[in-house]
Amino acid sequence: MDNFIFRNPTKIYFGKGMENSTGEAVGEFSHNILLHYGGGSIKKTGLYERITASLKSAGVTWTELPGVMPNPRLSLVQEGIRICREKNIDFILAVGGGSVIDSAKAIAAGVPYEGDVWDFCENKAVPEEAIGLGAVLTIPAAGSESSNRAVITKEEGQLKRAFGSDLLYPDFSILNPELAMTLPPYQRACGIADMMAHLLERYFTNSSPVELTDRMIEAVLKTVIHNGPSVMMDGDTYDAWAEIMWSGAIAHNGSLNTGRLGDWATHQIEHELSGIYDVAHGAGLSALFPHWMRYVINQDLKRFVQIAVRVWNVDQNFKSDEETAYAGIEALEQFWRSLGLPTTLSELGIPGDRLEEMAGKCAGETEKPQGQFVKLYKKDVQAILEMAL
Amino acid sequence: MDNFIFRNPTKIYFGKGMENSTGEAVGEFSHNILLHYGGGSIKKTGLYERITASLKSAGVTWTELPGVMPNPRLSLVQEGIRICREKNIDFILAVGGGSVIDSAKAIAAGVPYEGDVWDFCENKAVPEEAIGLGAVLTIPAAGSESSNRAVITKEEGQLKRAFGSDLLYPDFSILNPELAMTLPPYQRACGIADMMAHLLERYFTNSSPVELTDRMIEAVLKTVIHNGPSVMMDGDTYDAWAEIMWSGAIAHNGSLNTGRLGDWATHQIEHELSGIYDVAHGAGLSALFPHWMRYVINQDLKRFVQIAVRVWNVDQNFKSDEETAYAGIEALEQFWRSLGLPTTLSELGIPGDRLEEMAGKCAGETEKPQGQFVKLYKKDVQAILEMAL
Repeated sequence: MDNFIFRNPTKIYFGKGMENSTGEAVGEFSHNILLHYGGGSIKKTGLYERITASLKSAGVTWTELPGVMPNPRLSLVQEGIRICREKNIDFILAVGGGSVIDSAKAIAAGVPYEGDVWDFCENKAVPEEAIGLGAVLTIPAAGSESSNRAVITKEEGQLKRAFGSDLLYPDFSILNPELAMTLPPYQRACGIADMMAHLLERYFTNSSPVELTDRMIEAVLKTVIHNGPSVMMDGDTYDAWAEIMWSGAIAHNGSLNTGRLGDWATHQIEHELSGIYDVAHGAGLSALFPHWMRYVINQDLKRFVQIAVRVWNVDQNFKSDEETAYAGIEALEQFWRSLGLPTTLSELGIPGDRLEEMAGKCAGETEKPQGQFVKLYKKDVQAILEMAL
Repeated sequence: MDNFIFRNPTKIYFGKGMENSTGEAVGEFSHNILLHYGGGSIKKTGLYERITASLKSAGVTWTELPGVMPNPRLSLVQEGIRICREKNIDFILAVGGGSVIDSAKAIAAGVPYEGDVWDFCENKAVPEEAIGLGAVLTIPAAGSESSNRAVITKEEGQLKRAFGSDLLYPDFSILNPELAMTLPPYQRACGIADMMAHLLERYFTNSSPVELTDRMIEAVLKTVIHNGPSVMMDGDTYDAWAEIMWSGAIAHNGSLNTGRLGDWATHQIEHELSGIYDVAHGAGLSALFPHWMRYVINQDLKRFVQIAVRVWNVDQNFKSDEETAYAGIEALEQFWRSLGLPTTLSELGIPGDRLEEMAGKCAGETEKPQGQFVKLYKKDVQAILEMAL
């Protein structure tokens, strides 16, 4: 196990009706906030009314900044920073999924920073302070509700980049599984792929031994695999959604990568995809991950055998680790297909003509590789993209 | 899954040599602290010197209060409170196992409280503030390094009682598995029993469904069962100790009882044992838990089957849930015996003459039952104690 330092201070309010505690939760931090959300679905579902009623009753006033799109844009972040400075706002309430929360995190770090907030994404600066931040989660997927990271897209150059800081952990996050039940099926499936990818990125590590976190990641994966098909249905799916929503937060809250270094190349490759093609992050991940796995399988074949047997219940062929390991990858693909997710780029409508460009944006030819489990250079990334076509 | 609110703010420093960061960690909070420890073993191992050197280099001054004994005493807590008030100390550094950390927690809550700190143990008051607290852990067992609870023994009446408050989460805890490697074998085994008991108390619940936390508890149990025998050996056992030490913290940090209500009767019964006989808490738990399990097995037989199959790899008898469930309990007993732990009271030298007295102190005849999974009254507690003889 690697040495580590870990602290996740986010306060989780979990369960039915918890969004009615929003005002009380916000009021512990501020009474003059930015209310940040997406395209307005929260108005259709009635969530907007419940939240603003709760804010009002707690004496909290707010300025609204809607309009966050999937793959949240730098320009809206910059507008949020301007508004917060102008109105002396010191707390942001994000109501939505990972994109809204990520956008709020970038605003929170940007308000006290004198330079351009994009500097954080280019490692030119590190956040030294941030204003407060809370979230009401509507889409279990990104795990941003309990993580210290954010992903932002810069329109110019179609660049999608992540940055992180312990200052970005939300002060609180409100998770009511009922709020996820109105999501369209494709978005539910994409969320499942996203949280599974967060678990897989952590699972593939050269840190050794890491038995406890291996087993805990496997536990969360099995729970997601068991409950995923249930939340694709209609009807009373609260219990299954509760498992999925809490799994999505735990997958990305940092506890499962204590003492181990995850890979994260697939996420970075996907960022190039969705930076250009604006596909859903989870769908990009499901189209890439199995191919990445086949490309790197010989780095630690036994680890692929372990996940096949323990998570996918593959009947182990003790004479052939290869057969067992590949059967695990096939089970993953089959599971994602059963949810209606793509496992190739073609299914996403992505053609083969810009693979080299994406590979080049993602990794250098001899420097700046992606990935920790296996270091991938441009030619490797291009090969994986070609396999994924 | 039950609704819940969860926040664990303890910052964990984990790994080799981490105790050398003590001064830096403390310095974020205070430069005038109480250094609280036990019987002086930290001087023999050299830990005392490393920690005080680290404090000195960070400009931290300290007042020492050694002498914490297993089952920490109220009188020493009261002395600690007096010293902190007298010297305007606002932070306690606990160096030791659960007893030292629990004693420090009681002091931390007692300093700003006008009444007697024992009030918290009798539910006559709830801590409303507390001074700061950090820990350097030397015994993986109690989980107090990352929990919000403390257990204190009042000499008068031989009463051992727990209290809790989110104010009691340590600000930080330093976990270096190397520090556990000098423990005597019996103490290692008692620690393993203690952390397993924390997992079992959480496992047996009527909250349903709770798949994610079931699977995560199982993951931690399997890790402890796999690594427990290794840490009983001498030689280079760092890797196994790392799994055990982090398991012990996670077992009790609150994350594994999110959305579920654990039982905790066995802990309360054990408090009566060790209140009178001063046995090691872990040994008391190993002597009681299997008997509690047999007494309550029909509350949810399927849950006992689940743990038998998933954790103990019992070959399931699909025609007999009883056989499968009991085989799981026997596997637990066998495991504990293999570590040299008692599974009866007789092995602890506890005679049968005060069982009724202990049962009466623990639970009422028709009110104040113990346990959430199954409510136990005096006659039930007495029956379990008799089974355990």
